[in-house]
Amino acid sequence: MGKNLALNLADHGYRVAGFDLDKDKVQDVLATEAKERPDSVDEARIIGCDNIKQMLDMLVSPRVIVVLVPAGDPVDAVCQNLIEAGLNPEDIVVDCGNSQWTDTIRRESQYKDQFKFFGTAVSGGEVGARFGPSLMPGGDADSWKYLQPMWEAVAAKVDANGKPIETRTPGQPVKEGEPCTAYLGPNGAGHYVKMVHNGIEYADMQLICEAYHLLRSLLGYEPAEIGKLFEKWNQGVLNSYLVEISADILQQYDAKTGAPLVDMILDSAGQKGTGRWTSISATQMGVPAGIISESVYARALSTLTAEREKASSFLTADIDFSEIDADAVVQAIENALYCAKICAYAQGFQLMRAAQAEYNWELNFIGIAKIWRGGCIIRASFLQKIADAFEKNHELENLLLDDYFANAMAEKQKGLRDAVVLAAQSGIPTPSFYSALAYFDGYRSEVLPANLLQAQRDYFGAHTYERIDAEPGEKFHTHWQEEGRPETKVK
Amino acid sequence: MGKNLALNLADHGYRVAGFDLDKDKVQDVLATEAKERPDSVDEARIIGCDNIKQMLDMLVSPRVIVVLVPAGDPVDAVCQNLIEAGLNPEDIVVDCGNSQWTDTIRRESQYKDQFKFFGTAVSGGEVGARFGPSLMPGGDADSWKYLQPMWEAVAAKVDANGKPIETRTPGQPVKEGEPCTAYLGPNGAGHYVKMVHNGIEYADMQLICEAYHLLRSLLGYEPAEIGKLFEKWNQGVLNSYLVEISADILQQYDAKTGAPLVDMILDSAGQKGTGRWTSISATQMGVPAGIISESVYARALSTLTAEREKASSFLTADIDFSEIDADAVVQAIENALYCAKICAYAQGFQLMRAAQAEYNWELNFIGIAKIWRGGCIIRASFLQKIADAFEKNHELENLLLDDYFANAMAEKQKGLRDAVVLAAQSGIPTPSFYSALAYFDGYRSEVLPANLLQAQRDYFGAHTYERIDAEPGEKFHTHWQEEGRPETKVK
Repeated sequence: MGKNLALNLADHGYRVAGFDLDKDKVQDVLATEAKERPDSVDEARIIGCDNIKQMLDMLVSPRVIVVLVPAGDPVDAVCQNLIEAGLNPEDIVVDCGNSQWTDTIRRESQYKDQFKFFGTAVSGGEVGARFGPSLMPGGDADSWKYLQPMWEAVAAKVDANGKPIETRTPGQPVKEGEPCTAYLGPNGAGHYVKMVHNGIEYADMQLICEAYHLLRSLLGYEPAEIGKLFEKWNQGVLNSYLVEISADILQQYDAKTGAPLVDMILDSAGQKGTGRWTSISATQMGVPAGIISESVYARALSTLTAEREKASSFLTADIDFSEIDADAVVQAIENALYCAKICAYAQGFQLMRAAQAEYNWELNFIGIAKIWRGGCIIRASFLQKIADAFEKNHELENLLLDDYFANAMAEKQKGLRDAVVLAAQSGIPTPSFYSALAYFDGYRSEVLPANLLQAQRDYFGAHTYERIDAEPGEKFHTHWQEEGRPETKVK
Repeated sequence: MGKNLALNLADHGYRVAGFDLDKDKVQDVLATEAKERPDSVDEARIIGCDNIKQMLDMLVSPRVIVVLVPAGDPVDAVCQNLIEAGLNPEDIVVDCGNSQWTDTIRRESQYKDQFKFFGTAVSGGEVGARFGPSLMPGGDADSWKYLQPMWEAVAAKVDANGKPIETRTPGQPVKEGEPCTAYLGPNGAGHYVKMVHNGIEYADMQLICEAYHLLRSLLGYEPAEIGKLFEKWNQGVLNSYLVEISADILQQYDAKTGAPLVDMILDSAGQKGTGRWTSISATQMGVPAGIISESVYARALSTLTAEREKASSFLTADIDFSEIDADAVVQAIENALYCAKICAYAQGFQLMRAAQAEYNWELNFIGIAKIWRGGCIIRASFLQKIADAFEKNHELENLLLDDYFANAMAEKQKGLRDAVVLAAQSGIPTPSFYSALAYFDGYRSEVLPANLLQAQRDYFGAHTYERIDAEPGEKFHTHWQEEGRPETKVK
């Protein structure tokens, strides 16, 4: 990632001095630069340094040091090394790793006398870093002014319709278009937003997998057929990078066996933490984010391959479903995927609204939706609609309360209901489709059975309840053990 | 709680010296004791103390000090006060609050030179503390030997069939039967098990609420009718305290309006934290616990009363369900509740297995199931079956792999499928029923679509995958951007 970001910066005319504890990595960058752009080597736009001191000496003040190391202790170790090498209070250290937002908040404050600590989360993987990532900056606003031209140069770009403008050609970067970066707020805001991006990415991926699973199990489609279908879906409202690569993956065959490649891959999914963090943050703040959590759990369940194998023969399935019209099923699943996606994004944005209140940020929701249109893993034309929704109403409480998305749900929810029914009847596990429908139906329920739940809590724990005919905040307790169950108002 | 536990101890012949920062509370205990048992006052089985020093002076060595204060800093404050008042290293301080298990682990180690810190989680609310709670002890085994007779005396008791033996009569405690307490393991084990108890309690409560919601919405049953039905269910496999109190609650009418009481209670559910902790712990350790998490989220969603009201008129429901046979629906929902309950307990026990590995505990799963049979909020005849399952196989990986529960799922899963179908078709949000079915179907799936998910991860992030025809642990990467997509083995 560090190498690719350096090459990207050089493509945009920046001179970069680089250092790595592993000298080979520095040489690798120089060799790549020499190979990709033989004409530019003389200008030495990328300079390899033997130590941090030498690197700092190459930079003009205020220095901008971009750090790409694993999240956690290594970030603080680099900060200490930089301080020892002679950093000044006006210098800016930018953490481009997948750091936890709470660490970024802590570091900004901890290092404020030695230098300016600034966070910028990067999405788009190695290719994104090389040719245009989505950059999510958070930190002090003065530092942003200094970083802005640099981040706007290297970020992914989208055209006037919000579509990514792509390049894969070294030395010929995209210079036109709207850059996929915007100032998101102070201290940990950028890293928080990136974490939610990843949580949504978990949901997006799981939902695509569930759609694939249903199509394959219900209709007996081969992977390549589903790949073709996804290609078609990618032309419509589901247009997105993840649908695009899924279509590509499903049409590949294994060179060794000739089987569909996906069938040779073990169904045990890894995870690196940001999905979990998103789920935990939602749980801590009390924001319903079931689709994201179920996606995280689905990966956890997938890793129990030995147990599942045992269970698959031990547990009987009592399933029973009627004749199916293939076209109707395909249409239902396409609509289900779209509706569930809307709900997943609704949860993600609801979560960021809660974090904004928790950390006193003023998050730029239009900006967030816009900078996710290109460069990052969840890039999708859909994000333009989210930006539009927040343009219409800056204080939008939930995407489901926007006309466009409400209409989409009105029009297509039947597909989600049908997909859930088919999954339940046929025994296909679709935790995230299920959770999406529960979220939609729960959110639009004027009355939930939480009244019974509050009564239960009052019964066994005297936790009190509010009455619908009393003032908000007034608490009541029923004396459940006494004759006639008298109710008293609690002070 | 402190007062009630003191009275309970006195009922069992223990002399108790008590102290509270609030002198009135101490007087209240003495007054209650005098009122409940006028004959016993002369014996002064409960002695009120003006300060901690005085209290310590009343106790024989090794002293046992039972602390009932809010979890968090107050526990450490009490420990400091006790040290200052002259505690000895052989004295035992028992934390009976809802402490986080990590705090208990930390405290045992932190105070080991000053005294023995021991954890005992208490379930059963105020009534349980007074007449027999479920007690979940964790700490050093030597201290347990000293505490054991005391905890066995005051704990709830069950008869030879595992049914709670109840009393509500002061001075006439239950002395027969098997006590609902057992040594669970070192340091934080007791508090961890109690946390999972509460997580399961969240699921149990939410599932009952969803069953009620379905019955009411699908069949138009009145609360009292559902209460009567729950009374009937309480005679069968669903027999439990929570079904029993729900039956009672639903048959109450509001004195003020004459409406069903539950209809006058605001549908906004509170929560105090242990459900969240369970969900977070499961997420951190990678144990699928969707039913518990969805139950936590359902409470969170319920608190958005204003948003839900707005959404209820803004979002259209596209629902369509056919004529329903009421008896069949009732039967399906009863079976759904039972199946979902099995899955929720399977998740809870799976979580404790993971915690056992994480913290090097040897949890006594038979004991856990047994001590939950009486005294606590989730007490249910069902727990005897769980104890039986672990008796048959101490290393049982998942309740679903036990004959009894596998047969129950085989027999009744159709009800869960039907309930999910009805909920989806009629627009009733049943997040925990949904999650239970997804868990069951996922657990019994030999192949999950996580193979596509791993391919996606490899595509955009070079995260690699395993092949089904290679050795476990061997990693492969496809070069997705290259012609022919060559695959390489990763070192």
